[in-house]
Amino acid sequence: MIHFDIKKIDSLEKSFRSNLINSIHGVKPVNLIGTKNNENLENLAIFSSVIHLGADPALIGFIQRPLTEFSHTYKNIIETGFYTINQVNKSIFKEAHLTSARFERQISEFEICNLKSEYKIDFFAPFVKECFVQIGVKYVQEIPIELNGTRLIIGEIQHIFIQENGIDIEGNLNPKENQSVGVNGLESYFEYAELEKLPYAKANNILNQQKIK
Amino acid sequence: MIHFDIKKIDSLEKSFRSNLINSIHGVKPVNLIGTKNNENLENLAIFSSVIHLGADPALIGFIQRPLTEFSHTYKNIIETGFYTINQVNKSIFKEAHLTSARFERQISEFEICNLKSEYKIDFFAPFVKECFVQIGVKYVQEIPIELNGTRLIIGEIQHIFIQENGIDIEGNLNPKENQSVGVNGLESYFEYAELEKLPYAKANNILNQQKIK
Repeated sequence: MIHFDIKKIDSLEKSFRSNLINSIHGVKPVNLIGTKNNENLENLAIFSSVIHLGADPALIGFIQRPLTEFSHTYKNIIETGFYTINQVNKSIFKEAHLTSARFERQISEFEICNLKSEYKIDFFAPFVKECFVQIGVKYVQEIPIELNGTRLIIGEIQHIFIQENGIDIEGNLNPKENQSVGVNGLESYFEYAELEKLPYAKANNILNQQKIK
Repeated sequence: MIHFDIKKIDSLEKSFRSNLINSIHGVKPVNLIGTKNNENLENLAIFSSVIHLGADPALIGFIQRPLTEFSHTYKNIIETGFYTINQVNKSIFKEAHLTSARFERQISEFEICNLKSEYKIDFFAPFVKECFVQIGVKYVQEIPIELNGTRLIIGEIQHIFIQENGIDIEGNLNPKENQSVGVNGLESYFEYAELEKLPYAKANNILNQQKIK
């Protein structure tokens, strides 16, 4: 096997190391975070760091990178308290990727990247109309990660919109129907093919099967 | 579209809500975390909450659920300071899934779930031999998320092992070569098919293209 120890990792060329560490744990889900500021200036940005935090209460997190003058998503969330998380799908992953560019604040990525903002049920932040899974989130807390200046942004899920047929009777979303995509590292996009749904793993059953063998 | 507001989410049957919130942001990468305690008792557990935190220094995180008597991974990490994160692949996802069962601490999931532990370069914690991508991690910090009793566990990447052909010349891992898999919700496993690698998005290029149109 190829081996990188910490000394070698530290000495890697910057972009190689970034690709390596960004892809090291697998292909990540991709979402668009929609916000606007109090002057109704919209913003849209792609994130591959959205993470499940808990189902009861329904909490969802994402990692905010160290702030720069371009961290409009973060600024709008703190200023207004609301944002949307929208699953990127196969029809719009190219447009979604473009939102990663560093646009000035007065430019709306919705407009420049050809995605439509959608407002509904009096929710403050814009959803992405083209997305089959849309989540309306209320900001709850930010937790600084002082080691590297990132922060975990935590929100409460207040609204979920899913296209018809996008969810099964057990509550699981259907990645095929929703044309969900993932990203490997920073630039390579993937779609999904189902392998198998496995039963809930029970210790006693597994131990008994081992005994039979 | 189907709409769940917060009132409806709160009133959902527990397992339905768990599936919904666990699958709401997309298909997650799947990793096995290998540990042992100071008495050399091994443990192996599957996690779908591993997350990229930063490339320089190379940090990796995962979400630890509220502790129970079965939280052996967490106990071993705090006790010993070291763990491994190993990408689950297509050949072993069924065995990996079994590690989610609640086994008593004296039982090694390596043994009972038919996966082989591997020790190398004097690293304290066991790697998973069957995995094509193995990461040796040193525990750095835990950050409590008081809202729901979970915690973000942060580690520094000290060693990376990747099979030959598992990484490209730019540093990106190859999900096809590594037979990487993802999980939707808690039980449905997926493999990946590449859509496209997109170029780095530059604001000026995008703005100029818009002008041409």
